[in-house]
Amino acid sequence: MTGVHGRDWRPRYLQLAEELRVKITSGELAPGTLMPSETELADTSGLSRTSVRNAIRQLREWGLVRAEQGRGTYVRAPRQRVRRRNAERYQWEKDRVLLDQDERLKTGATEHDTGLTVDDLKFHAEYTRVEADADMAAALQVERGTPLLRRVYWTSSRHENAPLTMSYSYLPYDLVAANPDLLDASNEPWPGGSQHQLYTIGVELDRIEEEVRARPPSPDEAELLDIDPGVSVLTVRKTSIDTTGRVVEVADVVMPGDRSELVYSHKLQRWKT
Amino acid sequence: MTGVHGRDWRPRYLQLAEELRVKITSGELAPGTLMPSETELADTSGLSRTSVRNAIRQLREWGLVRAEQGRGTYVRAPRQRVRRRNAERYQWEKDRVLLDQDERLKTGATEHDTGLTVDDLKFHAEYTRVEADADMAAALQVERGTPLLRRVYWTSSRHENAPLTMSYSYLPYDLVAANPDLLDASNEPWPGGSQHQLYTIGVELDRIEEEVRARPPSPDEAELLDIDPGVSVLTVRKTSIDTTGRVVEVADVVMPGDRSELVYSHKLQRWKT
Repeated sequence: MTGVHGRDWRPRYLQLAEELRVKITSGELAPGTLMPSETELADTSGLSRTSVRNAIRQLREWGLVRAEQGRGTYVRAPRQRVRRRNAERYQWEKDRVLLDQDERLKTGATEHDTGLTVDDLKFHAEYTRVEADADMAAALQVERGTPLLRRVYWTSSRHENAPLTMSYSYLPYDLVAANPDLLDASNEPWPGGSQHQLYTIGVELDRIEEEVRARPPSPDEAELLDIDPGVSVLTVRKTSIDTTGRVVEVADVVMPGDRSELVYSHKLQRWKT
Repeated sequence: MTGVHGRDWRPRYLQLAEELRVKITSGELAPGTLMPSETELADTSGLSRTSVRNAIRQLREWGLVRAEQGRGTYVRAPRQRVRRRNAERYQWEKDRVLLDQDERLKTGATEHDTGLTVDDLKFHAEYTRVEADADMAAALQVERGTPLLRRVYWTSSRHENAPLTMSYSYLPYDLVAANPDLLDASNEPWPGGSQHQLYTIGVELDRIEEEVRARPPSPDEAELLDIDPGVSVLTVRKTSIDTTGRVVEVADVVMPGDRSELVYSHKLQRWKT
């Protein structure tokens, strides 16, 4: 055991960032407030300019402040957070497929994740027909060049312009063309979502596989999500497999790292005694 | 439906990055090779300098190249990847607790994730006694200032200096002190890992909860993990709850985003027919 004791194992910049976070979330530093300058913060905290700069970087990364070119750093308005429990979400969506349309119309999966209601959400859907590139051909287990339906979904809170999440979904075109309503983006948001759409063409999902990764946003994503380029995105590649073992949909979900988290609960079997 | 057809829905910089990725992974551009300059790439690809710059940024983010100040951008040697299936990993660890020590010595969870053997891995463990700050007090459901055992684990491949993953684990000090062997870092790597350690003090886990997030690395993390500051980290806050409902361990796992992924498989219940 080494000899470090006490509560100071975190770097100093992080301690300063935590202090400033408390001031922002408590409202002492209100949205729109210009943050104190690096010099002021260095003076009041007794830390180096480098530590102060790292603390500010940390606040940007948490999405609490925004640097405006040549004007300084401002406190942001709090943003809607998304906390997704995907294991429960997927089963919940599946259970809803067999409900009446009236029930399915009432709420969707994003409401489930955010606690918002249908009225609080804006929904943007865009469909295009594309051909499978190498990546999608491998993911969907089809030949390169196979026609695909590409669906882009951006879901936003009514109180914010930037989407909470973006999803890029790909399905074999010939599969979905069996129900022409599934080719028309104006039918979105579809009551009951993707699993109900698949149900209309006789598809039942057996399982959903997820690959979760972290990466910086592309320049387009940073703009769309209204995040500092120094904020990461959390991505999920979601592969849906039906009861015959066929891959029926691959979706790439992009979530802004400053206000999103994925939650999983793993129940363990008891030891036999 | 809008009218975009064909396979060109990806931005051009990404298409160039993909082409360069194939050249790197196929060995046409070998490790240590100086990458062509922006001007050369702009000339040969017909893309703008901005697109070329974004393509190079993308390669850095994938961990395929490294920018060296004033010297140019070099192809990196391929790095060990980690693909963690945590749901299966946790149950696997639990099942191993009751095996003989000989069995437990043979392999651990990191070998399980990487396909490496015990001999391929370097293991660094460091223990300190700290006091719970606000965050850990809330996570462990203890009073602020409660003594904790803080354990830092860095696991590396023998062929690389940078860790594959870093884990920062916190347990109530008084709980683990019941077995003094658990206070001594020189007993690491402990055969059978944390769940076996807890078993020696009469603790059986009921479930593990995970919160998965994405963020940029701190300056220290970027240096330790040997990643470009433009690479993100994937983090898991892992909360272990025993069969009496008590939180017995909270661990923050940090994985470099250029070579790590978390994989989950969600089996769905069949519709009743």
